[in-house]
Order: sequence, then structure tokens, then C-alpha cells
Amino acid sequence: MHFTVNRDQFVQHVQNVNKAVSSRTTIPILTGIKIVAAADGVTLTGSDSDISIETFIPTEENDNQYVQVHEQGSIVLQARFFAEIVKKLPGEEVEVVVQDQFATTIRSGSVVFNLNGLDPEEYPRLPQLDDTNMFHLPQSLLKDMIRQTVFAVSAQETRPVLTGVNLESENGELICTATDSHRLALRKANLEAGSDAPDLSNIVIPGKSLNELSRLLSDDDSTVEIIITETQVMFRFPHLLFYSRLLDGKYPVTKNMIPSETKTGVELSTKELLQSLDRALLLSRETKNNVINLKTLGDGRVEINSVSSEIGKVTENIDCDKIDGEELRISFNGKNITDALKVIDSEKIHIQFTGAMSPFVVRPTDHDQMLHLFSPVRTY
Amino acid sequence: MHFTVNRDQFVQHVQNVNKAVSSRTTIPILTGIKIVAAADGVTLTGSDSDISIETFIPTEENDNQYVQVHEQGSIVLQARFFAEIVKKLPGEEVEVVVQDQFATTIRSGSVVFNLNGLDPEEYPRLPQLDDTNMFHLPQSLLKDMIRQTVFAVSAQETRPVLTGVNLESENGELICTATDSHRLALRKANLEAGSDAPDLSNIVIPGKSLNELSRLLSDDDSTVEIIITETQVMFRFPHLLFYSRLLDGKYPVTKNMIPSETKTGVELSTKELLQSLDRALLLSRETKNNVINLKTLGDGRVEINSVSSEIGKVTENIDCDKIDGEELRISFNGKNITDALKVIDSEKIHIQFTGAMSPFVVRPTDHDQMLHLFSPVRTY
Repeated sequence: MHFTVNRDQFVQHVQNVNKAVSSRTTIPILTGIKIVAAADGVTLTGSDSDISIETFIPTEENDNQYVQVHEQGSIVLQARFFAEIVKKLPGEEVEVVVQDQFATTIRSGSVVFNLNGLDPEEYPRLPQLDDTNMFHLPQSLLKDMIRQTVFAVSAQETRPVLTGVNLESENGELICTATDSHRLALRKANLEAGSDAPDLSNIVIPGKSLNELSRLLSDDDSTVEIIITETQVMFRFPHLLFYSRLLDGKYPVTKNMIPSETKTGVELSTKELLQSLDRALLLSRETKNNVINLKTLGDGRVEINSVSSEIGKVTENIDCDKIDGEELRISFNGKNITDALKVIDSEKIHIQFTGAMSPFVVRPTDHDQMLHLFSPVRTY
Repeated sequence: MHFTVNRDQFVQHVQNVNKAVSSRTTIPILTGIKIVAAADGVTLTGSDSDISIETFIPTEENDNQYVQVHEQGSIVLQARFFAEIVKKLPGEEVEVVVQDQFATTIRSGSVVFNLNGLDPEEYPRLPQLDDTNMFHLPQSLLKDMIRQTVFAVSAQETRPVLTGVNLESENGELICTATDSHRLALRKANLEAGSDAPDLSNIVIPGKSLNELSRLLSDDDSTVEIIITETQVMFRFPHLLFYSRLLDGKYPVTKNMIPSETKTGVELSTKELLQSLDRALLLSRETKNNVINLKTLGDGRVEINSVSSEIGKVTENIDCDKIDGEELRISFNGKNITDALKVIDSEKIHIQFTGAMSPFVVRPTDHDQMLHLFSPVRTY
């Protein structure tokens, strides 16, 4: 193998595939990045067996010459060193040559690295996915949907299926749900009319995969194609493929958990509640259970308080836009609520309480594409 | 005690004294910040017994009213919570009231914190230092002198005196020296004429104290007063006092270590050498001894190389401005050299080698206020 590549392009692509490589893998070949030079360009692959990323640098595009392939071939190089080395190379171009026994030379400016490569034949092949179950989304929308749900997945491996975000489709809508069984985050989006509406049910993508994917998503409306099979999902970008395994197991039916009645309704500023809970958490965080108490006052305000016998207590009143229904005293995990408030981009929220011992729902007031459900904590 | 204080001022001052507070102290009262309200303003103190910081918020200054003291008194509050609470208070003013049993109320906007305080009588008193041995320096110069020496102090406690920076005065010059016995950093500065020249000898300030001090120093020419006694040093800023203990023990005499002869002299770009060593360290870092080899080439260049049997090797040639004297092959700890190159602000350096087994000196070419000395490593 022998090719010359534009350094900046190479750095960018190596960094992208490196996101999938884990130093803690038990499969030695996966500590490496696979490089394949073919007539049309150079393909790079990184994988930790849960996530795989493949990128392609074409020989030329839009009148820019990126790669000159002098001799086709392939190699696997230790990701940790290779990625750092490439970043620190001095020249505008990088020359990569593989000789006998996978001995690889990387040349740039007056610098020569000789690296011990690994056998590319040992590198696992990525699955060929069938395009039948495919749909597409704007990248910024997918990024929002991930940000607004993934924080609520379970961190515990006791119920593995809860460590992922569940995708369903219903009436032309895509519904993402995450829950750790104490709180639930749900985000909907309309699938574009005309798009071949996919039929999704019990598709659970690991939270970790979505967090990695999120870093590759842009903030604009360029689309990403999503292809789903029995065991894998693939996100297809121009020149980049992102694969993740799906989680096994039946995702719980969450629809019936969401209460329809309201005993106490409260409408107030997202930011004011967030800042107030942040202050109250300074004390309740210490007790490690993050318990915060909320009480409706007669005068259109709610009182937020938390107590730590060791440190002291904090009390604060917040003016609400509206309080309807019964008086209420309730306690909850304040950290769970602030996690949700941080991803609500709307200025105002409506909280729908159904009694001190029952789950309650937080929704933005200006659209119905999102809801957050929380269990109370028994203290009063 | 009862006072009202401007929130932004209070936050700034609390953060400053909090730099001295350590959560790992074995003296419980030192986990707190001491607050004293007197007729002329509020004094805050934080200490970990090595470092102490005292700041003062005057009732008014330059026509700004900062504090209103309604009742004089004092209290100690847990630094960790107090500092975070103050930062998150919503109002423009903060009211602090101490009632019976050190119960303290902090009010701001609609927020009320009730904190359990500690007895201020238990808080250790700061020493009253005698001003006889005093001099002053521009803050930016002191900051540079710390940055350019403190990285070279020893991280090992086996010879405690080497964990500090040594201050000496000689012929109207201040000389700062740090060494861990493998490398040495020396920085001089002219003391202002007319300033009562201090007589400094074997004054060793802990590196940790200087790092903390450095964060309080501004980048301008405003001066800081330095007062030195037998066991303590104090840095006096407007409204802020920074105390540090001095290290016991005799600092080694380093003057005779610096070679006067030159067997091989090399002059080259600081940045090019730094970037080259950075690349070579990618491989030698792995072997944990950071060994890098340098060799003069006949053609006005030096070769830098490093080898890791597992990963591979790197070779690079650097164009030098000048190479004088004998041919040379030498090995050294590359990390030590890059640490020094990073604090040399000059574009070019001169390296004075005295043979493959002898210490060598790195100096900027444009002034003689600084030098760095290194031991070679035996490999060739």
C-alpha cells in the first residue's frame, strides 16, 4: 500500500473513526484503525464492536485533489498513537507506505515515523445492511431528539434494555422514549410526508451509541439516512457510515403510565424553576438523595425547600403564571427535574400533578412534541 | 453580626479566599471561611495552614457603597457550601445575619438559606508580620518568574526543600531557582533601583503556594509588596493579603553546577525544537522514561529520534541557525526539555553541550535573565 493524502482531511477523518475505538476492548485488532487504499480513495474504519464508524476520503471532489493512491492495499495501525501522530505532523501532505510484515512508514515534512502495523485480514468485516427499512431526518432534529431523551436512560445494567432509547413510529410520527423507571423523557417528531414512512417498533439504540452519534451530527438541516435491520442500525452521512448494534429485549409499554387527569396544575418559567432547584440541590445533593420539597402557597406562588440536618436549609418562593386545582405538598428527586428542564428549550412549562404519591408530568407550554414524567419521593 | 453586601463583590472575595481552603484539612475549623464585620467593612479569611488568604471589602470606596454593617460580629461558615451558595444567589444584594448558636441566615431576593455556622473564636489568628524585610515587584514580572521556574520543583517529598522555589538577592538582582536534581530552572530580575534592596538568602517558598499566588496576580505593572520573615512570606495586594509558610532546610548551592565551557553549541528555533520533541515524545512517553536522542549531523542540522520496540520509531531533522564545536550524540528526558521550552518566550535558544555524559544548558538568545540546566540520560 502506498498513498499520499492531504493532512487536514486525513486528521479530520482519523478523528471521526477514532470516536468508535475503545482502549478497553478485549479484541486486540479493534485497538487499531483499518486503512484501505483503493483506486477511488482511502477508507478508514474504527470499531469497539458496539459502534463502528467508516469514513471515505475520495481521491478528488469538487476539483480538490485529496488523495493520490500509488499502490492499493490495506493495514491496521494502533489507533492511540496513529491518531496523535497524524495530528502533530508538520507538512501539508502525509505519505503512508506499507512494506513487508506490515511495517508502515508515515512521512510528512522532514518527519519519518516507522510503525508496527497489524494484519488487516484479522479486522472484522462490517455488516452489509439491506436498505428496505430506511427513512431520513434533518441532522439538527435528530440531534435535538437525542439530547432531549438520552439523559434519561438507565445507568444501571440490571435491565439492559433501559440503557437505550426506544424508537417507535405511529401515524407518521417518530416517537423516542427513554426511562430509568424513576423518570421518563418522550420526544416526538413528524416524519416528512412523502418519505417512505418506516414501520418501527421496539427499536432500542444504546444511549452510549447515540451520545457518540450526536457528536457527528451538524446543527443544520442537511439530512441523515437511517437504516434499520433486526440487530443493527446504520446512520448514513456523505462519506461516513455510523453503525450501532440494537439492544435485545422487550422495551416496556410506557403509554399507559402517562396520567390523563390533573389534580393540581402549575404554569411557570422554566429558567426560574431550574435556578431555584439548582440552589436547593446545593444542600440536598449532600444527603445523596437529591430530595426537594414543593408546596403550593395560597397566593399564586410555590415554595421550594430542602433540608440537610448537618448543613442547614433553604427556602424560596417562586411566582407562578397560573396555579389550578387542589393544594399540594410533594417531594421529588430534584436532580431528575433539573436534567429535564435543561433540555426544554421553551420559556414556560406546565406541570400536571395528580396527587402527592402519584407521578407528575412536565410539558413545555408552546408545543406538544415533548413530555417528561417523574415519580415522587415519599417524605411528607 | 448583621450586614448587607453587594453580591458581585461578595462572590469575588469569597472565591479569592476559598483558593486557600482545602477540603482535606485535618483541622475542622479550617474547612470554613471566617467572616468578620467591623465598622469599616467585612474581612474574609481562608486557610489550609500552609497558605492563608485574607481579603477586605470596605464599606465604601470610590463613591461605591459595597457594605452596610448593621451589627458588628464574626462567624465561620463551611467553605464548600458557602462559596457555591453565594455564587448562585439571585439578588443584587446579600444579607447575612448571625443569631444564637452561630445559626446564620443568608438572604437574597426571595431566597433564604439557614446555615449552621462554626465558632469564630476557634479560628487560628494570622501572624502579624514585621515590615523590615520588604520589597516590591510588578505583578506581571512576579507571575512570569513563577511560571518560568515553578514547573521544575520536585514532586517528591524525599527532599522537602526541593519542592519549593529558592529566592536569593545578589548585586541588586533577585534570583529564583527551582530544581528536582535532574533539571534546574533559573530566572533573574533587576530589583528597582531606589527600592530598599532586600537581603534574601535561602528563602524557599513551596511550589504549591506559588501556583496559588499566581492565580491572584494580574498581567499588568501594578505592584505587589513582598514581606519576608524567618518562617513566613506575605504578598500584599490592595485589600488582599496572601501568606505562605517557608520551607525549612538548606537549599543546595546551585551556582557551581552550571558549566562554563562549551564543547558543542547549537542555536535553533524554540518552537521547531518544541514541536519536534512533542512528536518524538508520542513514542518515548509510552516507555515511561521519555528518552529522546539527539545527534548533530554534518550539514548544519540535528537529528531527533526516539524508539519504542513495541510501537515503532520516529526520526526527524531540524535546520539549525548555528552548530559549533565537536560532533555529539546525547540522550535526555524529552519531557523535561519541553517543560522548559514552553516557558521560554524568546524565538531562538542556544544550547550549550559539554559532552554526552555532562549536564547541558538551554538559554534564550536575546537576554541573559534565564537559564535551564539538564542532566543527560545514559543510553548511547
